[in-house]
Parts: sequence; structure tokens; C-alpha cells
Amino acid sequence: MNHIKTRINLPETTQKRIVIVGGGFAGIELAKSLRDLNAQVLMIDKNNYHTFQPLLYQVATAGLEPDSIAFPIRKIFKSHKNFYFRMACVNEIRPETQTIVTSIGDVRYDYLVLATGSDTNFFGNQNVAHYSMPMKSIAEALDLRSLILQNFEQALLSGDPVEKESLMNIVIVGGGPTGVEMAGAIAELKKHILPKDYPELNLSAMKICLIEAAPRLLGTFSDKGSGKTQEFLTEMGVTVMLNTQVKDYNGEVVVTQNANINSKTLIWAAGVSGAPVKGMKAESVNRGSRYLVDEYNRVIGYDNIFAIGDVSAHITEENPKGLPMVAPVAMQHAENLGHNLKAIFNNKVSELKPFRYHDKGSMATIGRNKAIADIGKFHSQGFLAWVMWMFVHLFMLIGFRNRVIVFVNWLWSYAIYDRGIRLIIRPFKRTSKETYEVRKAS
Amino acid sequence: MNHIKTRINLPETTQKRIVIVGGGFAGIELAKSLRDLNAQVLMIDKNNYHTFQPLLYQVATAGLEPDSIAFPIRKIFKSHKNFYFRMACVNEIRPETQTIVTSIGDVRYDYLVLATGSDTNFFGNQNVAHYSMPMKSIAEALDLRSLILQNFEQALLSGDPVEKESLMNIVIVGGGPTGVEMAGAIAELKKHILPKDYPELNLSAMKICLIEAAPRLLGTFSDKGSGKTQEFLTEMGVTVMLNTQVKDYNGEVVVTQNANINSKTLIWAAGVSGAPVKGMKAESVNRGSRYLVDEYNRVIGYDNIFAIGDVSAHITEENPKGLPMVAPVAMQHAENLGHNLKAIFNNKVSELKPFRYHDKGSMATIGRNKAIADIGKFHSQGFLAWVMWMFVHLFMLIGFRNRVIVFVNWLWSYAIYDRGIRLIIRPFKRTSKETYEVRKAS
Repeated sequence: MNHIKTRINLPETTQKRIVIVGGGFAGIELAKSLRDLNAQVLMIDKNNYHTFQPLLYQVATAGLEPDSIAFPIRKIFKSHKNFYFRMACVNEIRPETQTIVTSIGDVRYDYLVLATGSDTNFFGNQNVAHYSMPMKSIAEALDLRSLILQNFEQALLSGDPVEKESLMNIVIVGGGPTGVEMAGAIAELKKHILPKDYPELNLSAMKICLIEAAPRLLGTFSDKGSGKTQEFLTEMGVTVMLNTQVKDYNGEVVVTQNANINSKTLIWAAGVSGAPVKGMKAESVNRGSRYLVDEYNRVIGYDNIFAIGDVSAHITEENPKGLPMVAPVAMQHAENLGHNLKAIFNNKVSELKPFRYHDKGSMATIGRNKAIADIGKFHSQGFLAWVMWMFVHLFMLIGFRNRVIVFVNWLWSYAIYDRGIRLIIRPFKRTSKETYEVRKAS
Repeated sequence: MNHIKTRINLPETTQKRIVIVGGGFAGIELAKSLRDLNAQVLMIDKNNYHTFQPLLYQVATAGLEPDSIAFPIRKIFKSHKNFYFRMACVNEIRPETQTIVTSIGDVRYDYLVLATGSDTNFFGNQNVAHYSMPMKSIAEALDLRSLILQNFEQALLSGDPVEKESLMNIVIVGGGPTGVEMAGAIAELKKHILPKDYPELNLSAMKICLIEAAPRLLGTFSDKGSGKTQEFLTEMGVTVMLNTQVKDYNGEVVVTQNANINSKTLIWAAGVSGAPVKGMKAESVNRGSRYLVDEYNRVIGYDNIFAIGDVSAHITEENPKGLPMVAPVAMQHAENLGHNLKAIFNNKVSELKPFRYHDKGSMATIGRNKAIADIGKFHSQGFLAWVMWMFVHLFMLIGFRNRVIVFVNWLWSYAIYDRGIRLIIRPFKRTSKETYEVRKAS
């Protein structure tokens, strides 16, 4: 069908062109700060929307619809005269000609900013990559929502008690914020929603396991926060398995060094790595697939290529692995690079500012009235942290409409212990091995 | 993967079993009315949710998300003790053994109610069936939303002015309420949204055509309503083509008896037919694929099989083609059959009531402050009709949360001339000819 000849088709200009690859927190924040710059700004993303990743787990657990946490990129920049957007995949960078190769044609850059974020890291385990459910995009979160509901519909039909449990059980791997939030949300589904929807099933047979390789949950939080998280989850009926590694998974049985767990749903929140683009010198990418950058977020070995957000790592003595791959780092990167690009464009190189990270603290929510906040010396666990978590997330969402819709949904869930969106809109089908090879390779 | 042995797995009971096929307006309303009946009620639907079809066009045009107009069926009936739901496709009816054959196993019925609704009717034109976009389900509405946005992204990349227009042009076939509402919604997208999102495109080159075979739009409405509809649409920039038939479509050019229109988007709202299940006597189904029923909605030739809603046609002198395929008929059918089933279960056959349709009038909305209402002798066109349309539709939606979310979205769109949901979550790819053969056959 698609015989359309495409080209990137930007208007000709004497302005220099800044190309930003990726419309995540880093890319969006940077493009916003370049509003008045005398430059042509081109953003490329494979989606036409920005995803608010911190709330993806609520899409996967029927609490929010995609539109609440996705925001059309064109809309954010509708009043920016120097901004252009193209929906495309970036396949390769050719620094020698200052060109990037995309699915819709090649484009030249004067400055290139890589803000491609991160990918799920399966640590080379091909079975896990094939059979587990990652949760890095809206499509993946919707697939997970469908799978959980489909499995419950199937459980009704099974006459075999082991299979029935296996269809209901959910195993989450990774005790970071995503895994913890996911486990908490599923525990609430189990308590408040699933018994009403499936009175024919014995929900007490359903197991929710959270598996973490390290000796504690939320490794980057305070000890007290970690401990309280484990306490909350255990109270809510989650089996927390620390010091445990997933060795294999065939779609039916999760194999760890200690035990096997029957479960047809394995949620993989155990690791991320950077998502670099091919074509750069091997020595500019580290073992975590992140671009090595200097204190100005310039990729090592290049003058006019920058990397910000999850895909960049500035290695220092205090941070031998680079900063954590979280939204606040990305946004601060963007703000600093925005300042520096303006200095470069104004020929005021003396005004270049090295990047300094201001850690504003960490938060994770576990369930109603239950969250963890570590903000400097202020540590809170419970209701206060939960209220803070809600307002910080509402505030971070882009768009007034999204805030209202999310707020209505939260109020609704809170008031009547419900989640409205138990819909199987597109039934999930596991991709064939061939499709999976593409996923692995890409 | 799916080697699970399934069976329909209903609890054993001495109660008689009523099987309802379909969770549309008719099926839901009927099941609600059977709440206190001493019977086992089983509903089967291929989706786990009820779709509020009158607002599908707003999903397709980025005004509402699916969750606002879909409602989980299990949730509606969570306090009904005698109600069971199974997500499955019904493949065949075997009246001789009082059994239906489904994708998850066979099930016996004492009473069977067919509420399978309607399907898009392409009048045998295989090219149109393959290349056009129908809009009868949420998945189809989302595909249409994706296609319109994808085509605009493509239009940016094309160097050929004819192709550019063809990517922007949208042709809607069918001047009934769905076609009219769709045309109006697209005209508003063209006026308020697309120019902001795509300042690089010349939107004045975009054509919106509404094609109708009859000499007027909204054929079931008053002459005044029809005329005003045409006037509103013309004012809004829609080219209304009456007495026009689509002869062919190859995905690029819409061929009518008068003219060819270049358009890569053809929306087919020109016809519906009933969606019967195989296995019934040929003489019980009419030419419109609807079950012929008596005044008690009993399918001709069967004692214990009923049909309600779009899939049923009661042929009388006043209605030689049966009643219109609309929600109010379906809901009144359901109410009446609910009464009659209770009479049958209570052995009070004297209380059986023949069906009488109470026409409460018709409404269609065209755009902001523009709607048509024909209610008995009350005819209104414009703002008042539009306010009435909104409140009637809000009231008809199932679920308080859905009403609030839809209301917030409508207020938002009204206040700032915006539609928030310009998201391409699952890019649309036309199915291959093989998949299409399956669609045709099913």
C-alpha cells in the first residue's frame, strides 16, 4: 500500500538546525526552552505524543486511560514558530556528514540532541524477553491490562485447579518504584475489584509475588522507606521475595534459585538500559548502553552532539555509573542544555554552565493512603507522603484537561474503591518468535 | 500457546437457563430486568464491555477516549446473583438440541435471546469492504482516529500536491445520523484543531464530502430538520452530495456516478444489516439479515428463541421493513421481553404483552450549538436541540464516572475549541487481503 515517496520536507532557512531525537521529559523540556532561539528546532519521535511514564502502571491496572497520561506533541508546541515535529524512527546517525537517517528520509543537523530514553533490559535472557510483559510504553501497558483480564476470563473456564491459579497469579520482577507501584496496584485490584467481577473464582488462591535480586526494595530510598514499603506490601497480601533472581520463564513457570512459581503473567520491571542509536563511535557508549557525556552533556568525542536524560551518563567519582535514569535528572539536563545552547548561539561561550544535579528526593506510592517520600532529611511513609505523591504527579502532568481527568479518576477510585477501565479493547496475543526476533534486534 | 481446555463452566442448578447473546442496549436492558427472576441468566459477548455506539464518532475524531463510552459488563451486574457472563464468540445455534456452540464450548439453553445487533453493510462491494473504514466498534473507531492522524503526518512529507490533498481529504458515505455527526465533527477538526497542529499544511485544500444516495440527509427526520442539517454542514465547509452513489473505491479514488474524488480516507456509514448467527431456518431471517419475529419478539418458527434490538424485524403493514435499527427500539424490546419472560416463568401466559413501539423522537448533532431534534410535533434546530442532545446522551451513558469524564471533555472542547486526544496509540495498518477474506466471511 505505502508507495508514498517521503522526505522530511522542512522549510528552507538560513537558521541553524537543532535536531532533538525523542519527546520524553528531556526532549520536551529542552524544546520548550528553545522557544525564542534563532534556530530551526526539529523534534523526531516514533509517537505523536509524550508519555507520562510514571503513571503507566495505572493504565496497566485499569485505573487510567491512555489519554490521561499521553499528550500530543504538536499541541505542546503549537505557539512555537521555530518548532517542527516529524513522527519517525531514527535508524542511524552519520556524524561525518552531520546527518541522521530516519524512516522518512535523511536530515542534516547543526546540533544534535539525543534524548532517546531507555529500553527494557532483559539481561540477555531470551525466554524472559519473549514471554514476559515489559511496561515502557502505552501500547505495552494496554497489552498488560488486556492480558490480566483475559487470564481471568480464562480462569473461569478451566477445570484444572493448578491452571486456574497459574492464570490468576501475577509475578512482578524488580523492586524499584515501577515494580513496587505495580505490585501495590495489583494487590488493590485483587482486594477491591476482582472479587466483585469474578465471584465464581476463589481469589484467595491468587498469589502476587514481587521478586527483587537485592536484599531490599527501593534500593535508592532510605532504609526506613524500604522497610516500610515491604511492610505495606506484605500487609496488602504481596509475597515479597528478596535476594531472589529469575533464572528462566517459559510462559507458565517462573524459575528462581529458590522456588518455581506457576504464573501466566510475568511483569518485567527489573532493568533498563539506554536506547542509543547506531552510527556513533563504540567508545562513546557505556556498558549500560548510555552515551558517555561531559559535564555539558556533550557526547564524548563529538562537538555538536549532546545526550540528555536516561540515555546519557556523566561518569564522576561520586557517580561511577552516572545519575539515576529518572524524570527529574532528564528535566534538569534539559534546562541546563537549553541554557548552554542559547549561550552557544549568542557566542557567549563564557556563560556555558556545567551540569549540577539537585536531588529533590524520591517518592513511590504503594496503595491508598500508602506512599514513601524521601526528600532530603524529610522522610515520610503513609498518608502524608501519599497526598504529596498525588499532587506532585498531578502537577507534573502536561495539560489542564489531563490533570482534571486524572483527578476525577483518582477521586472516583478513592471514594468507591473502584477502577473503571476493565476493558479488553485489543486482546493481547503474544508475538510469534519471528516478531520477537525483530523486537530483540531493534 | 493456547492449549487450555475450556468449557463454559456454569454452576449446576435446577433453575431454567436464559442465554442472552450480545451485550448491546437490548441485551443489557433485558438482563437488568431479569434480576429477580428465578432463572440462571447467561450473557455471552465477544467483548467484556458494553459500547455506547451513539458516541463512537467522537472517539474516532479525538474528542473522547474509549473508556468514556465503554462500560465493563461484569460491573453492571455485580450485584445480580443469578447473572453469569462469558466472553466468547457464538458460532452456531442448534435449536434441535437447544444448544449454542461458542468459541469456549457448548451450552444448553431453555430460552435463547438473540441480541447480536448489526454489522456494516457494504452491499456486496468487495473493494469498498476492503478499503473503507467502518465504524461499528471501538477498535474500528480507534483505527479511524489513527488513520486520519497518520494521513496528516504523511501529508507533511509529500511533495506531490495531488497526493497531499488526497491524504487530507475525507469522504463520508451515508447521510444518516452517523454520517452527519461524523461530517460535522471532522469539519470542526478542520476548522479548530488541524490548522494549529499542522501549520505547514494548507488546510483550505482539504475537502470533506458527505455522500448520500437519497435526495436528502437524515431521511427519517422532518423535512425541516433535513434541510437545516444540510445548511449547517454546508456552512461548516462540508460538500454535501445527494442522489449520489459510490460505485467503487481502490483506497485512492472514490468513484461515484458523477465524479471521482481523491481521498485516502473513505468512512462507510451507508448501511447496516442484522448480524444473525448460523444454524436457524432460512425462513426465519429476512433480506436485511434480521430475524423475523412475532409481536412477542419470538423468532418465527421457534417457541423458545427470541430476537430483540437491531437483529430483529417485526414486519407489519405500517412497518413493512421492520422498525429502525436504533437504541430506543432495542431498549423498548428488552423491557417488553423482560416483562413477558417473567410472565412465562410465573405461568401467567395471559399477561403476555405484545410489543408496541413508542417513538420518542430523533436527534442528531452536527457541531457546537448545532443539532436537530424532532420530538413528536416539537421540531428544533440549533442551540436548544444541541443542549437537549447533550443531556439525553449524558443521561443514557452507563455509569456516573463515565458521565463526569464525558462532561469534562465536552466542557473542555466547548470552552477552548480543542479536542485533547490526537493520539496514534496503535498505528492503523490495512489488513491483508487474506485477513479481509476472514472479515468478509465472519
